[in-house]
Amino acid sequence: MIEFTKMHGLGNDFVVIDAINQSISLQAEQIRTWSNRHFGIGFDQLLLVEIPVSPDADFKYRIFNADGSEVAQCGNGARCFAKFVRDKNLTDKDEIRVDTNAGQLLLKLNADGMITVNMGIPKHKPEEIPLKTQDEAKFYSVIANNIERGFGAVSLGNPHAVLQVHDIKHAPVNELGPLLESHPDFPERANIGFMQVIDRGHIKLRVYERGAAETLACGSGACAAAIIGIEQNLLDHEVIVELPGGTLTINWPGRGQPVLMTGPAVSVFEGRILL
Amino acid sequence: MIEFTKMHGLGNDFVVIDAINQSISLQAEQIRTWSNRHFGIGFDQLLLVEIPVSPDADFKYRIFNADGSEVAQCGNGARCFAKFVRDKNLTDKDEIRVDTNAGQLLLKLNADGMITVNMGIPKHKPEEIPLKTQDEAKFYSVIANNIERGFGAVSLGNPHAVLQVHDIKHAPVNELGPLLESHPDFPERANIGFMQVIDRGHIKLRVYERGAAETLACGSGACAAAIIGIEQNLLDHEVIVELPGGTLTINWPGRGQPVLMTGPAVSVFEGRILL
Repeated sequence: MIEFTKMHGLGNDFVVIDAINQSISLQAEQIRTWSNRHFGIGFDQLLLVEIPVSPDADFKYRIFNADGSEVAQCGNGARCFAKFVRDKNLTDKDEIRVDTNAGQLLLKLNADGMITVNMGIPKHKPEEIPLKTQDEAKFYSVIANNIERGFGAVSLGNPHAVLQVHDIKHAPVNELGPLLESHPDFPERANIGFMQVIDRGHIKLRVYERGAAETLACGSGACAAAIIGIEQNLLDHEVIVELPGGTLTINWPGRGQPVLMTGPAVSVFEGRILL
Repeated sequence: MIEFTKMHGLGNDFVVIDAINQSISLQAEQIRTWSNRHFGIGFDQLLLVEIPVSPDADFKYRIFNADGSEVAQCGNGARCFAKFVRDKNLTDKDEIRVDTNAGQLLLKLNADGMITVNMGIPKHKPEEIPLKTQDEAKFYSVIANNIERGFGAVSLGNPHAVLQVHDIKHAPVNELGPLLESHPDFPERANIGFMQVIDRGHIKLRVYERGAAETLACGSGACAAAIIGIEQNLLDHEVIVELPGGTLTINWPGRGQPVLMTGPAVSVFEGRILL
């Protein structure tokens, strides 16, 4: 039997498992079965909490997609992880250092229950994103459906392109998203964000995620949109990002500095499943 | 806090709650929130197990759809209910009589773990189905997309029409289903089944459910297809029905007799949710 907690961050939902106090060995086939709500539990990702690898870390966590493949990072998952280890009394710290397959993360539990994730230092060079172009710029363009589309690009460990739109409701997310996501200018494909600027401290955002579809809330996409908006002088350094699943606050002082994402994590129910 | 069991019958999934030993008062809004997997639990229907109303019944159960509305019956839910009350030691009987909003049901737990549901006596008269036609027949026809389509019709408390197809994989479920489901010849609409006859004891079936879409497994649809196949002399009295979510066995001796549906019920996990 395995005990788990079902959680979500802005509707991005997780099965979180304490693999420190439980002996866990999961096969990809098991994860796939559990990920299907009709025959299993249903989740976007499964998160395993483990003992740390590095001496200065408090924990390690691993993230698995519904198809059983392991992924490096997930901002919404990081917030749920932080709430989980506190709720389960696995730590009493307010700042939690955690090993992931994408390096160390620093998470902070705020007094109001919100959780801040240090999402690292964004990378702007085209070859780091990667984006096929000669020179770094604040605006790039690409031809899609015979129309030239302007965008900004940045890497947060994964590649992001963000387009500005006038009306988020009618943004061509499902039309342009798949076209741009796999455009040859993005050799490793890209997450495609559509951002409506409300004012210098507030945007609305929809994201077509690489290899997936439009999602309720893409944490790194929210960071990318804020960073690109700040770079393009559309936004100030603290930005409220309204996503379909809820709201995040992004702080980014500027080039060379890490970006901070602050938002909620919710525990929905506790579960016990037979293996 | 409420304890629940997540179960499924051929992928038709349920949250089952013991409302005898727990004091439960659910609002439609609560059910809607829980029915969404991303923010809640996720299920097709929620099933409340209550004390019986009639003196000869063992239990009562009530079924709620994901939108919070109460429905009268569900064959897959009946099997899950029977497994639940036995697993939870709420009864030690092998034959369980249960009050529902659609009348009493008799359920039988078989030695092999399968559960048999007495689905009642089918109704064949056009006005009972209801179907707009003068005379009762084994074959009716309707014009859809300018083509005449032959079908059989029966009521199992809900109206069913079943069309024979040669290849279940390429059956026009999502094209014809919505057209026929709301055709004016069905004043209360109808569930539309597409049946491929493999041999006289075996069919494959896909069902477009009234007001819903194609589903993994429609219990009353499986009964309807077997009954119509038996009436049209395509099938014998015991029929294995292969649905996308799994397999049911239907027994029907003939006119005036109840139809018996036998199939599995699976408990996936135990949950505890805060109100």
